[in-house]
Amino acid sequence: MQRFINNPEFIVDDLIKGYVKAYKGFIEKSANNDRVVKRKNSPETGKVGIVTGGGSGHEPAFLGYVGENMVDAVAVGEVFASPPAEAFYDAILEADSGEGVACLFGNYAGDNMNVKMAIQMAEEEGVNVKFVTAKDDIASSPKETRHRRHGIAGGVYMWKAGGAKAALGGTLDDVIAVAQKAADNTRSICVGLSSCTIPAAGTPNFEIEEGMMEIGIGHHGEPGIRVEKLKSAAEIAAMMTDALLDDFAFDREQNIAVLLSGLGSTPKMELYVLYDAIEEVLKKQNHRVEVVLIGDYATSLDMNGISLSLMKLDNELKELLAYPAKTSGLTIIRS
Amino acid sequence: MQRFINNPEFIVDDLIKGYVKAYKGFIEKSANNDRVVKRKNSPETGKVGIVTGGGSGHEPAFLGYVGENMVDAVAVGEVFASPPAEAFYDAILEADSGEGVACLFGNYAGDNMNVKMAIQMAEEEGVNVKFVTAKDDIASSPKETRHRRHGIAGGVYMWKAGGAKAALGGTLDDVIAVAQKAADNTRSICVGLSSCTIPAAGTPNFEIEEGMMEIGIGHHGEPGIRVEKLKSAAEIAAMMTDALLDDFAFDREQNIAVLLSGLGSTPKMELYVLYDAIEEVLKKQNHRVEVVLIGDYATSLDMNGISLSLMKLDNELKELLAYPAKTSGLTIIRS
Repeated sequence: MQRFINNPEFIVDDLIKGYVKAYKGFIEKSANNDRVVKRKNSPETGKVGIVTGGGSGHEPAFLGYVGENMVDAVAVGEVFASPPAEAFYDAILEADSGEGVACLFGNYAGDNMNVKMAIQMAEEEGVNVKFVTAKDDIASSPKETRHRRHGIAGGVYMWKAGGAKAALGGTLDDVIAVAQKAADNTRSICVGLSSCTIPAAGTPNFEIEEGMMEIGIGHHGEPGIRVEKLKSAAEIAAMMTDALLDDFAFDREQNIAVLLSGLGSTPKMELYVLYDAIEEVLKKQNHRVEVVLIGDYATSLDMNGISLSLMKLDNELKELLAYPAKTSGLTIIRS
Repeated sequence: MQRFINNPEFIVDDLIKGYVKAYKGFIEKSANNDRVVKRKNSPETGKVGIVTGGGSGHEPAFLGYVGENMVDAVAVGEVFASPPAEAFYDAILEADSGEGVACLFGNYAGDNMNVKMAIQMAEEEGVNVKFVTAKDDIASSPKETRHRRHGIAGGVYMWKAGGAKAALGGTLDDVIAVAQKAADNTRSICVGLSSCTIPAAGTPNFEIEEGMMEIGIGHHGEPGIRVEKLKSAAEIAAMMTDALLDDFAFDREQNIAVLLSGLGSTPKMELYVLYDAIEEVLKKQNHRVEVVLIGDYATSLDMNGISLSLMKLDNELKELLAYPAKTSGLTIIRS
């Protein structure tokens, strides 16, 4: 295992220490909980709070989206593990100005359970909390059981839209409605070319043979839909785009936001090679690409692979995605 | 070789096609040269042009720094190979509004030769071109032969400072002076944990044994200073920081900008683990960290490794680094 780490048992503490040092201009650790990172000026009077959280190893998700006009506080879990209910609870308290808190997180069993416990605890303290779960990964469950699907990189659009709505003065119900629309309008799929290694384990989570690829692999190595021979970038891009468009089953042309993320060890060059083919497929079906994000937005430690997310845009979502934001993971400048 | 590519012979064409599609809002290919990417509104009347260029495989460098208030036009080479003189020449023409062009590039034999040929060709057309070469990689040549050192991620600070100066209305001499100061004030060093594979070759460039690390490795696998047993992140970070501070040989405390870049396949999490120790070392010597960039800024295909760059700041450089910019590789929002 060739890694830049200290004691693997303390890797999350080390990550948070370094992260908070790097962004001390606008970020700090919660005084109440070492596993909660917050915006310095949170809670902000009159603003609905935005909270997220999840396991570590997916950087910049989740703590990388804390900042101006996006997320106010985040619960940070161990590598690939849900943060405890207490961390979500403390994150909620750090984000609540009295206007309520929108908890926007990815649909996984552990996160679901812990967020719901945290909400119960927060409500006992009189905090109004509502939540939306991202369920964008179409490979994680068939369409008929969509409620079981996991949340992956598509969550970035949910945090961006919800965060902008809150910054613009939206009520908790406004923010939840927009975040729910963002989540409902987003579909993602991954392709993996390698496994990943949890530092404390020291050996790969699973295996993908040389010359093969795993379609629909999950962000923690959850088995995909199928393993098949590695194809060209253009073929892989077309297959992924088609799978997402099939799942949407659009009845007319759409305005689309694309998010293409590396999973951790994917060379940047290849993301652009893939994007060329993705846009070609969308154009051929007369969809218009209005927003593009390409880079590492939600990763899986050192996994070689990609996730492709498509979001169906309306005017409101388009404006919210374009609204300025400043986080370590995504900065949007006024155009 | 597990890669998302089409025909490896055309990977740079594919990269440019995808890149220009993704950022068509502010980027386009030159009409005169398929290997030149430019800002859409370049040349800009009254503004000094900023040009760079270099081999592909280092994304987001170099084309990722084309945009608002940074680079105007870039010459794109084959993987790990200098762009031809014609590409630098065409990039210069695409950037010249009559106020002259600052060509800011990394010090490598091929780039040097081709830029100088391009400058000669441009001068015959009456274009005023001056240049600065980044020589930040302290491992690539000893202090006594500093002029032979290569340019690596530290170039990002040169492009940012030079680009901001040009945007603020600086003359060609002003821009060159600031870019030269940025280059002179910057030192970098890499540590590699794995090799990288040029797609057209299909096999790794070199080898680093499991359990070992190569200190001072170059961005194309140029041999480093020494190979030794892999240490902890904190020890590696301290060793790298100390090496840079030794090379600077400061006689008092400084204001410092830090740039920590992954080399292509380094998990994001580990960059923060490393940063924690880097800032500790700087603080212990009473240096003040004023600017921090952490992410993938200049990569080497799929190399697992990091580069650390330190820049000595004065007020002018600090203001220029903070000036707003919008590129795919670096976006700075007005604070």
